[in-house]
Amino acid sequence: MSGVASISQPPLLVAFSAGASGPWRIDRITPVVGESLAFAPRLMTTETPIIDSAALASQSPGGWTLRGATSNTRYTSRSETNALAALQQGLGRRDATRAALIPVRKTPAWWNLAQDERRAILEEQSHHIEIGLGYLPAIARRLHHSRELGEPFDFLTWFEYAPQDANAFEELVDRLRLSPEWTFVDREVDIRLSRP
Amino acid sequence: MSGVASISQPPLLVAFSAGASGPWRIDRITPVVGESLAFAPRLMTTETPIIDSAALASQSPGGWTLRGATSNTRYTSRSETNALAALQQGLGRRDATRAALIPVRKTPAWWNLAQDERRAILEEQSHHIEIGLGYLPAIARRLHHSRELGEPFDFLTWFEYAPQDANAFEELVDRLRLSPEWTFVDREVDIRLSRP
Repeated sequence: MSGVASISQPPLLVAFSAGASGPWRIDRITPVVGESLAFAPRLMTTETPIIDSAALASQSPGGWTLRGATSNTRYTSRSETNALAALQQGLGRRDATRAALIPVRKTPAWWNLAQDERRAILEEQSHHIEIGLGYLPAIARRLHHSRELGEPFDFLTWFEYAPQDANAFEELVDRLRLSPEWTFVDREVDIRLSRP
Repeated sequence: MSGVASISQPPLLVAFSAGASGPWRIDRITPVVGESLAFAPRLMTTETPIIDSAALASQSPGGWTLRGATSNTRYTSRSETNALAALQQGLGRRDATRAALIPVRKTPAWWNLAQDERRAILEEQSHHIEIGLGYLPAIARRLHHSRELGEPFDFLTWFEYAPQDANAFEELVDRLRLSPEWTFVDREVDIRLSRP
């Protein structure tokens, strides 16, 4: 699978629905910054190549649905793209039975920054891309953009890894949360999941 | 209004609906690259702060609707942002009775480029931002992102100007279409409008 994720695909609309059913068991939901999300026992992920309003609105009774679209990268340079492509693996690996869904919202101050200012904070100051690279291929990752969909979060990042890489994953999220970039996060929820 | 547009606002979902009614008269629809859009006599613009599926689906009988979301800038540096903010004016000026809606789709090759490669083509090679700056404040502009909404175009750019600036506007679009960036455009339609 190496390199596959480096090729830009048409955006995929992804709905993460927490409720009574779904292949992933929700182990815990922890508020990191700001308001949490309600607990539900299972999570279902629906991927559609184009917007389907009916599918979007679907929601388990008593649960919640968060939506995001995969897209082109916004900050990654060619050399970083090549480094990532050489190492990263795709979602759905048989032994990747642990997952995390981390919805994040950034402050208006972040969105008021110019592109060069956001890039400088994200990478030159916070080493976001470099840190993530250090955990490849163990931690697979897919980013979804939600801000232009009128969603409560700006980003939904989905991670998959094997149980033996759980400590590495904790280190990864801890390092990112200590970075200057994270001072621009005003809502974050950490949802951990597992499957047999 | 100078500077107002430099402040990042929450994304606005905008629907451009061509059909039998609306405040703008459609003067002509010209295919520039690829397939055109059907002619309709009037255009209505609907702005909603969050996604409203019902509003999104609304469409005049026999017409078409294109949707896009305003968002943060993706390529503009701080110095460019400041230069634009010092000069640009908002939409809705009383004397801006001419408008253009230009939907554009870019090739997979464009979307496969890394951020630094896209920036280099857009500005260092094509001077997209610098060219636009040269037509301020006469030509007001708002960019809408459509790619992550599953739309047929990637961008919808809306321009407004006074009749006496019509020649300047033709020069602006001609210069952009001759730039290296435009070799990545595989569908473009040019819709011209006017109001009393």
